[in-house]
Amino acid sequence: MKLNIGIIKGDGIGPEIVTEAMKVLDKVGEIYGHTCDYTELLLGGASIDVHGVPLTDETVEKAKACDAVLMGSIGGDAKTSPWYQLEPSKRPEAGLLRIRKELGLFANLRPAVLYEELEGACPLKPELTEGGFDFMIMRELTGGLYFGERKTEEKNGVMTAVDTLSYNENEIRRIAKRAFDIAGKRSRKVTSVDKANVLDSSRLWRKVTEEVAAEYPDVTLEHMLVDNCAMQIVKNPKQFDVILTENMFGDILSDEASMVTGSIGMLASASLNDSKFGLYEPSGGSAPDIAGKGIANPIATILSAAMMLRFSFDLDKEADAVERAVDQVLKDGYRTGDIMSAGCKQVGTKEMGDLICERI
Amino acid sequence: MKLNIGIIKGDGIGPEIVTEAMKVLDKVGEIYGHTCDYTELLLGGASIDVHGVPLTDETVEKAKACDAVLMGSIGGDAKTSPWYQLEPSKRPEAGLLRIRKELGLFANLRPAVLYEELEGACPLKPELTEGGFDFMIMRELTGGLYFGERKTEEKNGVMTAVDTLSYNENEIRRIAKRAFDIAGKRSRKVTSVDKANVLDSSRLWRKVTEEVAAEYPDVTLEHMLVDNCAMQIVKNPKQFDVILTENMFGDILSDEASMVTGSIGMLASASLNDSKFGLYEPSGGSAPDIAGKGIANPIATILSAAMMLRFSFDLDKEADAVERAVDQVLKDGYRTGDIMSAGCKQVGTKEMGDLICERI
Ligand SMILES: CC(C)[C@H](C(=O)O)[C@@H](O)C(=O)O
Ligand SMILES: CC(C)[C@H](C(=O)O)[C@@H](O)C(=O)O
Repeated sequence: MKLNIGIIKGDGIGPEIVTEAMKVLDKVGEIYGHTCDYTELLLGGASIDVHGVPLTDETVEKAKACDAVLMGSIGGDAKTSPWYQLEPSKRPEAGLLRIRKELGLFANLRPAVLYEELEGACPLKPELTEGGFDFMIMRELTGGLYFGERKTEEKNGVMTAVDTLSYNENEIRRIAKRAFDIAGKRSRKVTSVDKANVLDSSRLWRKVTEEVAAEYPDVTLEHMLVDNCAMQIVKNPKQFDVILTENMFGDILSDEASMVTGSIGMLASASLNDSKFGLYEPSGGSAPDIAGKGIANPIATILSAAMMLRFSFDLDKEADAVERAVDQVLKDGYRTGDIMSAGCKQVGTKEMGDLICERI
Repeated sequence: MKLNIGIIKGDGIGPEIVTEAMKVLDKVGEIYGHTCDYTELLLGGASIDVHGVPLTDETVEKAKACDAVLMGSIGGDAKTSPWYQLEPSKRPEAGLLRIRKELGLFANLRPAVLYEELEGACPLKPELTEGGFDFMIMRELTGGLYFGERKTEEKNGVMTAVDTLSYNENEIRRIAKRAFDIAGKRSRKVTSVDKANVLDSSRLWRKVTEEVAAEYPDVTLEHMLVDNCAMQIVKNPKQFDVILTENMFGDILSDEASMVTGSIGMLASASLNDSKFGLYEPSGGSAPDIAGKGIANPIATILSAAMMLRFSFDLDKEADAVERAVDQVLKDGYRTGDIMSAGCKQVGTKEMGDLICERI
């Protein structure tokens, strides 16, 4: 099979970690008989440096012509980077938001997994996480406050800023269906998170998720208020299977959940559209402080490549092989600095990529 | 001094815990020579049961005539209580939102404190919380998505729901000043939390907090994105002194923070207006499952009464005495069920109130 993959190396540690993921993809190709055809695309700071804008129309078109896109991380240090002298709509993150919208990537999947071997890095007491946990956050990614109308204007001499949170039933239905589809292949429970005691958009969200739930008799739906969910993720992460929520709540809760696992350098993510196309990226940021040092953890990006094989190319066997290789490398005691613990062998970015390739 | 106090017993465990806080206030009055004059006010489910609505105009007027209001908790079990058969605007919580707005309670203070004696209940590993932590969330309470225009309507046959997030510079300035005032009496650091990489309202928030910071040269201001803050509260709660944020972010982060302390039954809160008036209530909910059993923890409400003495009546000595009595009762090994641990003596709601009174 020919895999037509867009590559966005991105900023900070992006190029280093993406390089390792490409190495893993090539190794998979070699073993299973696929050819990876890469098209390099510029997004974020890297695009500003070349084109003056974080995303060009040409890049959007090129991305659309790919079957899937693998991305490093976008953005720099907001305090020191010249990118942040630009107005907000021209900064690196604006390119990320625009490409999500242009490609219709409404379904953002963020796994929150506690790896048995990495329990030491988890900030929670062991009695709360015994036996591990493994849930998936399904975040709506192209609606809500992120893409509503906004304006800042003077009203009677007083500056006023307005953002708009809007959802229609179709937007809610398609993400809810995705959540139920995925829950059906997991532990068959969807926790839909909203603020229905305050927001109209949440009340519509609740109504539509209930309609969708009626089509999935074997999946349980529960509703949870967002403030309660922020508590429950800390108190009892084992209770969750799939958390379904809107864009802004999902941004907050998925980052909280990734921290609760204690190993954000291990967490993949996928942003999917209506068909098989997806943008795959690590959950963590561009970590400009350690960029270029060869010490960043490439595993989140490698696992994102595995998600790409699974969701965009239906190559489950290949995805399993990558995930198993990652498990094995951890079992064999290799760690990058961010997940290092006593008795393990510390390795750099490139070495970690090699070790995983060897195990495929 | 005559203390003119409104009392909202509220729903669920509300009446039990408020009764103990009133006992403590009376004891303080006895010792320090004050008279507490209580006016009972109905809000939430208790008001629905009597008047059919969660808050009457008459109650609003009566509350305004008090110097401060002490409240239990509002609301019931959304799955089973008949209150939740009513439309959203008639449910218990709607009364709470309305009274906040009517009384102009824009500044919501929620302490997140790890009590040395209760470290066992904290979900975080001891190495993350060594030496304890003590921060304050200052949440804007009368603006943002909670009070913006909203509507649900059919557009070309598709149901669409819209909520509005709006802030003007005056609303931001007054809450920011409160945060800086309070930080000035604490560790002199304000962490302002927003989503300025996406929202116009957050960019205005950032600008105005910087203007306010210029008036407080001895207090440090840092900005943090809300998704990062949700991570940092778990990763390193010791870094915070005062967290300043808008209404919805504050709702989510304050609940996350209260769970991170591990003892939500200990956490007070105050909602203040432009003058000395305040509404004081425990951070936790109405816990309908344990209502009437005499086992709820009254300490959060008792500490809310202490905040009332301090903020609305300037009775610092009296507030200190209550807080010291609570510390002492913990040192003496008394615990309600929610914070019970090995080697301690378990007591009920009323006994806990008595034990605290004895120590004042
Ligand atoms: C960079 C930012 C705009 C983005 C978001 O808020 O969606 C990021 O936090 C994420 O979660 O991917
Ligand atoms: C009951 C609800 C409307 C309320 C809020 O969201 O403000 C509660 O969660 C709180 O934090 O006091």
